[in-house]
Amino acid sequence: MSIAAVLERIKAVVGPRGWIDDPSEEEPYLTEARRLWRGATRLVARPASTAEVAEVVRICADARLPIVPQGGNTGLVAGGVPPEDRDSIVLALGRMNRIREIDPVNFTMTVEAGCILAQVQQAAAEADRLFPLSLGAEGSCQIGGNLSTNAGGIAVLRYGNTRELTLGIEVVLPDGRVWDGLRGLRKDNTGYDLKQLFIGGEGTLGIITAATVKLFPKPRETDTAFLALSKVEDVMDLFARARAATADQLTAFELIPRTALDLALVHSPGTIDPLAARHPWYVLLEMSSSQTESGLRGLLERLLTAALEEGLVADGVIAESGAQAKELWHIREAIVEAQLYSGSIKHDVSVPVSRVAEFIIRATAGVSERLPGIRPMAFGHVGDGNIHFNLTQPESADTAVYLARWQEFNDIVHGVVRELHGSISAEHGVGRLKRDHPLQIPGRNRTDAAREMRARPRQHHEPGQTRQRLVGLA
Amino acid sequence: MSIAAVLERIKAVVGPRGWIDDPSEEEPYLTEARRLWRGATRLVARPASTAEVAEVVRICADARLPIVPQGGNTGLVAGGVPPEDRDSIVLALGRMNRIREIDPVNFTMTVEAGCILAQVQQAAAEADRLFPLSLGAEGSCQIGGNLSTNAGGIAVLRYGNTRELTLGIEVVLPDGRVWDGLRGLRKDNTGYDLKQLFIGGEGTLGIITAATVKLFPKPRETDTAFLALSKVEDVMDLFARARAATADQLTAFELIPRTALDLALVHSPGTIDPLAARHPWYVLLEMSSSQTESGLRGLLERLLTAALEEGLVADGVIAESGAQAKELWHIREAIVEAQLYSGSIKHDVSVPVSRVAEFIIRATAGVSERLPGIRPMAFGHVGDGNIHFNLTQPESADTAVYLARWQEFNDIVHGVVRELHGSISAEHGVGRLKRDHPLQIPGRNRTDAAREMRARPRQHHEPGQTRQRLVGLA
Repeated sequence: MSIAAVLERIKAVVGPRGWIDDPSEEEPYLTEARRLWRGATRLVARPASTAEVAEVVRICADARLPIVPQGGNTGLVAGGVPPEDRDSIVLALGRMNRIREIDPVNFTMTVEAGCILAQVQQAAAEADRLFPLSLGAEGSCQIGGNLSTNAGGIAVLRYGNTRELTLGIEVVLPDGRVWDGLRGLRKDNTGYDLKQLFIGGEGTLGIITAATVKLFPKPRETDTAFLALSKVEDVMDLFARARAATADQLTAFELIPRTALDLALVHSPGTIDPLAARHPWYVLLEMSSSQTESGLRGLLERLLTAALEEGLVADGVIAESGAQAKELWHIREAIVEAQLYSGSIKHDVSVPVSRVAEFIIRATAGVSERLPGIRPMAFGHVGDGNIHFNLTQPESADTAVYLARWQEFNDIVHGVVRELHGSISAEHGVGRLKRDHPLQIPGRNRTDAAREMRARPRQHHEPGQTRQRLVGLA
Repeated sequence: MSIAAVLERIKAVVGPRGWIDDPSEEEPYLTEARRLWRGATRLVARPASTAEVAEVVRICADARLPIVPQGGNTGLVAGGVPPEDRDSIVLALGRMNRIREIDPVNFTMTVEAGCILAQVQQAAAEADRLFPLSLGAEGSCQIGGNLSTNAGGIAVLRYGNTRELTLGIEVVLPDGRVWDGLRGLRKDNTGYDLKQLFIGGEGTLGIITAATVKLFPKPRETDTAFLALSKVEDVMDLFARARAATADQLTAFELIPRTALDLALVHSPGTIDPLAARHPWYVLLEMSSSQTESGLRGLLERLLTAALEEGLVADGVIAESGAQAKELWHIREAIVEAQLYSGSIKHDVSVPVSRVAEFIIRATAGVSERLPGIRPMAFGHVGDGNIHFNLTQPESADTAVYLARWQEFNDIVHGVVRELHGSISAEHGVGRLKRDHPLQIPGRNRTDAAREMRARPRQHHEPGQTRQRLVGLA
């Protein structure tokens, strides 16, 4: 059969609203979010049901036509962007966006792959439950992509990665058969747990079309603190102490270096430094409880008072309102955005939590020796041992020349990761970015990207509000 | 090479202390814990290191000599018992019992497969951490077997099955190569998560020799309650309410039917009925917190007072001491033991938590219609949807005649499980018991088994202690 005839068969399966081949409309399916990659495709197929996905896959399997499954296309490793050769089709799951079932007593919901993550969170909230997966792209990423990449995010510390949140999945296999693993069971030991191969499999073994995921009790009380530390070695001591004292109520433990805060203060209006003095390291800490009389605040104050007295924490604030908490979280978002204004060589690595400080110290020494003036921005979910060890160019450097050394710095950083028995892809996956080492990132105009990101609405500081200073501080 | 020569090579690898072929010493490796199965073997090999396991496996692979890996031999589905044909060797992991590393800051420990579960728990406790896996056989089962069967137990509700507790494993593959997946990372998305195939794989794909498992903050406060309910439909409402109110502090939610308590009161001295009146259903509920001023007790009292006022709970007690809590837990253990005194047809099934009551009602109707007078004992970890739906023979029935109908009743019960999208093996695995349907359980002298179980020491009621009655109760 000719390729044209194959494409016609696919169009017939998905119906007139289910395909795109107009180049102008295809663009969002071909371009990676940061515009670092741009592919080409014969057709964007947008099936609306599992049966349609299966039929499209069967046709493609018969015709040996490659398929690139795509969710919200927000991935950072180009796993969802088609290759440049235009030999493949994109199979986009966005029309499969039904919440099939919510079962509040079983604490589960069954959702189709194309549901936007924020939509899943919202549906859970309406049933007085929490779906805890939360990450920067939640307004546009799809749950199917979250499953295929085993997405992490900011709530892993308490609730686990997407893998741990998943009880069952429905998958279209490479020959078009449907594998029905949609079970909502907490315990099932009847054979190999095959769903685990598809979760984090990045679509290479099949296309996940639906999932039954775990829900949790909704948090009723949340406390957020922003703490300053004198040295990075203290960060993990503080983590161990906070975790032991608060158990599963510790929901986030994010590291922020002063270098990154400085960049954010310059580039991201609305960002404020919550503390009077400068400190080399900060931790954004969040605790939450599903109880309404949780005593969480008292617990946090006792923990921090003791840490202050022992010199483990140098200074800090606790948010007095939801608005203030958002403002503290804004710092975390702003440091990501601020890195777009300079050449930044990225790493998404993990090490055992006990070796985070050692990793940062050694990797910083390694890259600084190679290029004096380089500005490491070691931030991220250190409660999970996950560091986004990004390297901002020296102030005076030429961006293109700097970025051309991407792989050289990857090698240094990944060498330290390996020595500490870590992972060079902690939460972003392999995709095309890390599949073919050595990797090269095409150059781009980063100022444009920053402008786009800035266009989204943000929380701003409300001047009338104050923050509580910690006991014993000036 | 002759089989004798192969066995000599194995003996040379494991050394003089590493093998057994004296029939009298082999017995514990050949007999299943309940004596329902008894196999035969050419040799029991007891390697002391991963290298020795690998070498034994390599020799066996070359000689096509079957291997039955065995941990503590406490499984309930005969997965570790060798076949009767004496064609295989038993590879027992008990000498690989080193705790390789404890990392309190990473909240992990690395243990060898032959470590007794209680030893692992103890080592974690000494590092001020909790390893939460807990089950009846913990004094003799081995962590390698727990991993290979993805063991469940009483703490799954809060901490997950063994699978969820495992970050990395080391495996000897069927050809003797060692697969080193011993990582202690919370996030690692570099490829397929292959360890998941070995966890719960019951030794069919390789022999797990070591694992890096998660630790948790140690509980500082625990509260235990024993509650009476008028009808089984209320059980899951109570569960949903308790879980939503207490979040991750709910650590156990066990169902106990009156029929089982009656049996235990007859057969298990030291068992007491904590409540004055008779009730058809009971729930044993446990909450724990790693905080020392958790407010847990007040939370439990508020929850139960509201449930009493609304008629969801008919009566109940809260333990006032650790000794009282143990006494309440003794009821849970005694009902297992008491079932040994009569013919009992067993089921280890799970359904979505929201359908537990429906399952019990329908399965009870199904078996009662087939055999009036049959006594269903639906108990277990209903917070996980896991019901041990055991069927005690009618009072006057002949035990052998009754047990000969094992498969007939399995079919009825498993039929309901299937209709409710459940699992016929929730936490015990497949083993040999469920591999070859239809299954037949050989008869045995159950009184002997009961006598053996009774020999172990138990907690007894201390007469001087009282229990608190709930507010508002007579």
